[in-house]
Amino acid sequence: MLLEAACALDVQVEVLAESAADAASQVWGGVQYGSGSVAQDLRAFAEVCDVMTFDHEHVDVAMLEQLERSGVTVRPSAKTMSFAQDKGRQRAEFESAGLPVPAWRLVVDATTVQEFAQTSGWPVILKALRGGYDGRGVWVAESLGDAEHLVAAAHDRGHALLVEERVDIDCELAVLVARRPSGETVTYPALETVQVDGICREVLGPARVASQLAEHADVIARQIAELVDSVGMLAVEFLVSQDRVLVNEIAARPHNSGHLTIEGAITSQFEQHLRAVLDWPLGETALTAPWVAMANVIGSGHGDPAAQRHRALAVPAARVHLYGKQARPGRKLGHVTVCGEEFDDVRARALHAAELLMGVDGA
Amino acid sequence: MLLEAACALDVQVEVLAESAADAASQVWGGVQYGSGSVAQDLRAFAEVCDVMTFDHEHVDVAMLEQLERSGVTVRPSAKTMSFAQDKGRQRAEFESAGLPVPAWRLVVDATTVQEFAQTSGWPVILKALRGGYDGRGVWVAESLGDAEHLVAAAHDRGHALLVEERVDIDCELAVLVARRPSGETVTYPALETVQVDGICREVLGPARVASQLAEHADVIARQIAELVDSVGMLAVEFLVSQDRVLVNEIAARPHNSGHLTIEGAITSQFEQHLRAVLDWPLGETALTAPWVAMANVIGSGHGDPAAQRHRALAVPAARVHLYGKQARPGRKLGHVTVCGEEFDDVRARALHAAELLMGVDGA
Repeated sequence: MLLEAACALDVQVEVLAESAADAASQVWGGVQYGSGSVAQDLRAFAEVCDVMTFDHEHVDVAMLEQLERSGVTVRPSAKTMSFAQDKGRQRAEFESAGLPVPAWRLVVDATTVQEFAQTSGWPVILKALRGGYDGRGVWVAESLGDAEHLVAAAHDRGHALLVEERVDIDCELAVLVARRPSGETVTYPALETVQVDGICREVLGPARVASQLAEHADVIARQIAELVDSVGMLAVEFLVSQDRVLVNEIAARPHNSGHLTIEGAITSQFEQHLRAVLDWPLGETALTAPWVAMANVIGSGHGDPAAQRHRALAVPAARVHLYGKQARPGRKLGHVTVCGEEFDDVRARALHAAELLMGVDGA
Repeated sequence: MLLEAACALDVQVEVLAESAADAASQVWGGVQYGSGSVAQDLRAFAEVCDVMTFDHEHVDVAMLEQLERSGVTVRPSAKTMSFAQDKGRQRAEFESAGLPVPAWRLVVDATTVQEFAQTSGWPVILKALRGGYDGRGVWVAESLGDAEHLVAAAHDRGHALLVEERVDIDCELAVLVARRPSGETVTYPALETVQVDGICREVLGPARVASQLAEHADVIARQIAELVDSVGMLAVEFLVSQDRVLVNEIAARPHNSGHLTIEGAITSQFEQHLRAVLDWPLGETALTAPWVAMANVIGSGHGDPAAQRHRALAVPAARVHLYGKQARPGRKLGHVTVCGEEFDDVRARALHAAELLMGVDGA
């Protein structure tokens, strides 16, 4: 999707791909093969780039710091990437800055969890500090027994954990922030994200929350962008509980919660990311319709969504995006966006088209 | 732009490009080199395609017929392509079908032009039957002397001509039609095209003409799509004169007049072309805003538009598209689309951003 935006703006992009199986390398001309975790691959890649940017966070921060010291322009910076990779660092720094976060603590051992639960009550949430996504790296501990088991398993795998209160969630929000090296910052209207089993199922815009809540989330997202010295797109995810927003986590890249901006906002998050990392003027962020809904196409074990594409395209106004990835249960394989006037209708059509692609519709 | 749409839908596209200088081959992974005018290149290319389609009309129709006979699926067909290539055939068949066209005649020699002018009056328009575009292949003859000169020059180059009345033009329209092999047909709202020196400068939607005129153009465009057995996108261009529409010419492909559909319509003409040639359900064609304006970025001799990109991106809501083509005076190098509520504002912003890219703004 970033490449589609680059193509429209005639921005020359070179892609560093792990292998020819990567989605980008199947369509794009300018691909170099290598790993973002191998220093010499990154250095060789940096030589052909004016600006290096990322579409995921699995990059070695120490290597990025080395590249920066050797004069490579890395956006977002190693500093921002290190925030994005480390949920513990996010929590600690956001809390120090006075931003609202769920009650939490770094886990030393099961005793930490027990002590924490004495205040928060059971159950509690355990989270891997690094590498978790789409429901992976998050566990619920109902009791000390659970906690002991989970902490031991994480220890065996070398995973550090944090423990947090289980918040009674009314809904979840995402605020997308674009920021240039100069500091110029724009935000998109707050969006509502709907998670099922820890995986984002839908994104709805604008978020159906009181305007003060959306405004508060917007202010916090801008503060965080400044705090982490963001350049490019930053997604700030919030939990809404008892009429207040709590910062959950951040992603320093175009993010799944922003896919609806392709058709649903004047400037897509992908074009915005390019504008920001290239230090060009940022684009307008208003939505293009009263309501915009995005539903993810998630691998369901019912085959390749492309085989159902013609059915989804028959859903009125459904904008279908398929990523060309190998179908695997739980993997995000595409999404559908619908823009329109009637919330229920827009939402239902996006979900229906996504379900057709997933092969899980009732028909 | 077709490749951007293909990418979103995960449609595998192979491109037949003349050389590495072609815009598509600069970004796209799946490129074969060869010529659409060389039989063995076309045959080799056909072997890797389920469906063969086109983004220009410079293809040998006899070769397409051979491919069709050998079982290759060619959409649009050789028949449609032969219509699109031959303005004389278009005129003759549209006239036989009772469709309104300007008064015209095939030119045998300068005497034909003189006889024609006795009825229509001078000046008259001379047009090459084949190959003309962007103002090329169209001449005004003010007198018999002009006609003799133009006919002789065309004869020397081997160009056949038609002569037509010079119509007093109120405005020009384009109706975009998408049609599937099954015959399912959708049209976009009639668009207004603004030509300067024979080159399309702006496209404005919806066309500011009486609804009966727009409806009449729509009915004619559908008739023509059926008449030429169109599959894929077809642009039908009209002259509006004295409250009636006259068919000017057709293009059997995604067309410059439809570029504003990328942001300005629910389904872009590029996605629609893919849907149609792949025989998938056609998408909705409504505009996404009350007004949509597109301004072409035309080579002006003031350098590469990409050098001015950051200035154009500062124009609010301007959606910039640059094609990565070598800048040359008179060549279409990109376009800018703006969607919005106020006609004058939308139009002015698109033009302003295009002029910034062309390096011809007053600033």
